[in-house]
Amino acid sequence: MDRDDLIRKLDKMFFPSSVAVVGASDVPVKWGNLILTSILGWEYKGSVYPVNPGKQHILGLACYPSLTAIPDSVDLAVLVVPAPRIPSAMRDCVSKGIPAAVVISSGFRELGEEGERIEKEIVEIARNGGLVFMGPNTMGIASAHHHFEALPTPSAPKPGGLAIISQSGNLGLQILKWAAHKDIGLDIYAGTGNEAMLHASDLLMYLGSRDEVKAVTMYIEGIADGREFMEIASEVTRKKPVIALKAGRSQAGSKAAQSHTGSMAGSYATYKAMFSQAGIIQVKTPSELLNVAAAMTLLPIPRSNRVGIMTMGGGWGIIAADQCEDSGLVLPQLSQEIIRDLDARLPEYWNRRNPVDVVGEGDPELYLTVIGSLARWEEVDAVIALGIIGRSRYVEDFMSCQERLDGKLYSKELKLSVLKAQIQAEDRIISGIGRIQKETLKPILVVGLTEGGLTLKHTDNLPVITLSSPEDAVSIVSHMARYGMYLSGTGN
Amino acid sequence: MDRDDLIRKLDKMFFPSSVAVVGASDVPVKWGNLILTSILGWEYKGSVYPVNPGKQHILGLACYPSLTAIPDSVDLAVLVVPAPRIPSAMRDCVSKGIPAAVVISSGFRELGEEGERIEKEIVEIARNGGLVFMGPNTMGIASAHHHFEALPTPSAPKPGGLAIISQSGNLGLQILKWAAHKDIGLDIYAGTGNEAMLHASDLLMYLGSRDEVKAVTMYIEGIADGREFMEIASEVTRKKPVIALKAGRSQAGSKAAQSHTGSMAGSYATYKAMFSQAGIIQVKTPSELLNVAAAMTLLPIPRSNRVGIMTMGGGWGIIAADQCEDSGLVLPQLSQEIIRDLDARLPEYWNRRNPVDVVGEGDPELYLTVIGSLARWEEVDAVIALGIIGRSRYVEDFMSCQERLDGKLYSKELKLSVLKAQIQAEDRIISGIGRIQKETLKPILVVGLTEGGLTLKHTDNLPVITLSSPEDAVSIVSHMARYGMYLSGTGN
Repeated sequence: MDRDDLIRKLDKMFFPSSVAVVGASDVPVKWGNLILTSILGWEYKGSVYPVNPGKQHILGLACYPSLTAIPDSVDLAVLVVPAPRIPSAMRDCVSKGIPAAVVISSGFRELGEEGERIEKEIVEIARNGGLVFMGPNTMGIASAHHHFEALPTPSAPKPGGLAIISQSGNLGLQILKWAAHKDIGLDIYAGTGNEAMLHASDLLMYLGSRDEVKAVTMYIEGIADGREFMEIASEVTRKKPVIALKAGRSQAGSKAAQSHTGSMAGSYATYKAMFSQAGIIQVKTPSELLNVAAAMTLLPIPRSNRVGIMTMGGGWGIIAADQCEDSGLVLPQLSQEIIRDLDARLPEYWNRRNPVDVVGEGDPELYLTVIGSLARWEEVDAVIALGIIGRSRYVEDFMSCQERLDGKLYSKELKLSVLKAQIQAEDRIISGIGRIQKETLKPILVVGLTEGGLTLKHTDNLPVITLSSPEDAVSIVSHMARYGMYLSGTGN
Repeated sequence: MDRDDLIRKLDKMFFPSSVAVVGASDVPVKWGNLILTSILGWEYKGSVYPVNPGKQHILGLACYPSLTAIPDSVDLAVLVVPAPRIPSAMRDCVSKGIPAAVVISSGFRELGEEGERIEKEIVEIARNGGLVFMGPNTMGIASAHHHFEALPTPSAPKPGGLAIISQSGNLGLQILKWAAHKDIGLDIYAGTGNEAMLHASDLLMYLGSRDEVKAVTMYIEGIADGREFMEIASEVTRKKPVIALKAGRSQAGSKAAQSHTGSMAGSYATYKAMFSQAGIIQVKTPSELLNVAAAMTLLPIPRSNRVGIMTMGGGWGIIAADQCEDSGLVLPQLSQEIIRDLDARLPEYWNRRNPVDVVGEGDPELYLTVIGSLARWEEVDAVIALGIIGRSRYVEDFMSCQERLDGKLYSKELKLSVLKAQIQAEDRIISGIGRIQKETLKPILVVGLTEGGLTLKHTDNLPVITLSSPEDAVSIVSHMARYGMYLSGTGN
């Protein structure tokens, strides 16, 4: 199949005008019910046809005894019937001229010889019939701009620039849910399952071709065709970042991967070299995968690895400086010009170093002045700001302590006004950082004093990402910097 | 000063019957106001004496012109007046026979020669007067069993077994706040500041002597007397775990540390060797510091580094296995006996490996059977359980998807009962894990599907810790295992 043909069919898969669910069910908690509910529950605008020979209606929709009985054309068939019945359903797809299918059912190669036989059979039916399918043994797909989610648990993510390719359903879904709960916009989620026909490489090619996609994340257990993958990846990474989490790096992990999707994990050294050559960003944890991808879909890419740090509190700055050096980031010494700049604003005894310690000051404009000076400085490619967001939580704690004193000192009005002032100050900081990012086209990562990891805040200019811990900000900046250097040919 | 005398004085500092705040203020947001509010706002049962020559009353309390004007005895003086006035306040402490002081004020060694001179002066006054003091340039101290918090922002942590020694106020306070918000019980918080008189080593000795303390965390920029520290640390780590975050490991970080508390950071290699020899657990991030410490105050210490993993979903298991191998943990192969055990409970096609993949099952009793089998197995020292907690969030998402379908399928009653069943199932799992931990005396770390990091759940038996990401569980288990091996003399 040539690339254009494949893209056309994948367009049908992810942006179907009509979808049939073969094995639809009205029994709660059954897969055929979960998937149908997900599709219907999210303002999907296309036609939906449940297929189940034993039912007249499911979820208020007319139900058909077979795919071929559906009177209209169908773009996508989602197959949920048991493995032994998939070949016949696949033949019906071909008869009906359906261009794309997603085979949710498990019970194929991952279970042994008989499953492997059926898997080969359905690949042959699909190839001969000119149809492409995802899976089997996948939890499904989603495309947020199309409000389409064929998954066992819906997330209704905001449309956006993130794409997820996952060879693990549970893990992929979790990342998708994190993204949705954190309000990080999604374009495509593709759970590739056993990859009997469509491989992660095909999806990577497809996502590379979509302008809507700003960053691709991949959870990879094994790549079937290394050469094909390298060709496609090298092409895509010139256009947009590809971030991969390779599972099965260790002996124990690689054995587990083999028994999971039946994939040969291969030696990690080989993958590492391959990824590095293709310009793929490699991460080691699922949360890093999402953090880095979120930043790369939303923030400017730094040109190189030089970081300016502003900190409220010395300790945080030192920790972050250590982590920067661990991760290959460089902290340039402050120039005389910047020192003069900041001398005018900071107390006489400020530390005159990078990290810049803003000591006990609490003025949002001062923070923005320091952040702006660092971001505008030509020897810095990215800025990390520590300890200035999340103080409203401190103020709340202080207020509840005051409550216990029966308002002996602060009136209720004063307390509310202090809290309000703190929240407004933080809003001003966030909005100022959005503006400075837009002006300087450098990413500014904020580390707050709150739990919960990555938080996304929208502003009139660029959005602002805050993290709970300096290591998360450093990880993001270092991966972004490495990609920036790859793009400009200055990296390794 | 001999050790017993020092302990007696530190008992007065952390468990004062009466405390004076020199520089108390009724002006909101001033340090002399913040500290006094913190002390008063948390059911502290001792007497509190504000000292301020310009006021008759502060926060409803009688205010005294000087320490010596206070009619009763004072156990602890908290000094908040500017640096140049500290020597005179310190002399008053001596005249009044006060055994302990905390010098909050900054403006000493960290600011240059004049500050250094005053710092030396107050050390001499204190030494000659038989008084010990913390600081200067500290944000304060807290002791939770005594409901006593002399800090700029109160946290009201639950009393418990965690102790925190921090050479950074901002960072230490943040860890204290995380602990309080996460409901991890505290014994003592000690912000040591410039350590003019009392060193981190003194505090470590003191906390080592307290039975209430189950684990000591230390944020360290520099140690003044390496030999003394080694002696004390080697003694304490035989009794309880000491977990250290050394800041200033890198060149950039070490320079920043020098300008922060004026401490000589020294070479990291030296510290690393010193810590390792003394049996100190070394972590690299503040959140790791808290996670590991929380687990070590609450869960049994594993005897060695062999881990059994149960996973719901193959991908998570593979990732966790990779991380275990990265961290020096070992995943033993399942014995024939355990395989037979689980054959009776798991579907025919289960993977028969460690990690044990419980595939698509959703039965809490099954999870507990598998976790119990792994925990009781003599070749395993700790268990990690992945993907079984937090599914109620999935159910909620599914329910809100159902909402959008106008309850076409599920009645409101059915929906609520499904959600309730999920929550009850998770409660059953947690309570079962608490029981198995108590029975086997092995730690069981749970990785859930929720954001927000470490969460503590109490049960009728041992508490259960859940994390958001496998790497956090692996980090905890690996540090605990290393300590267990140190205790038994099998580690390095």
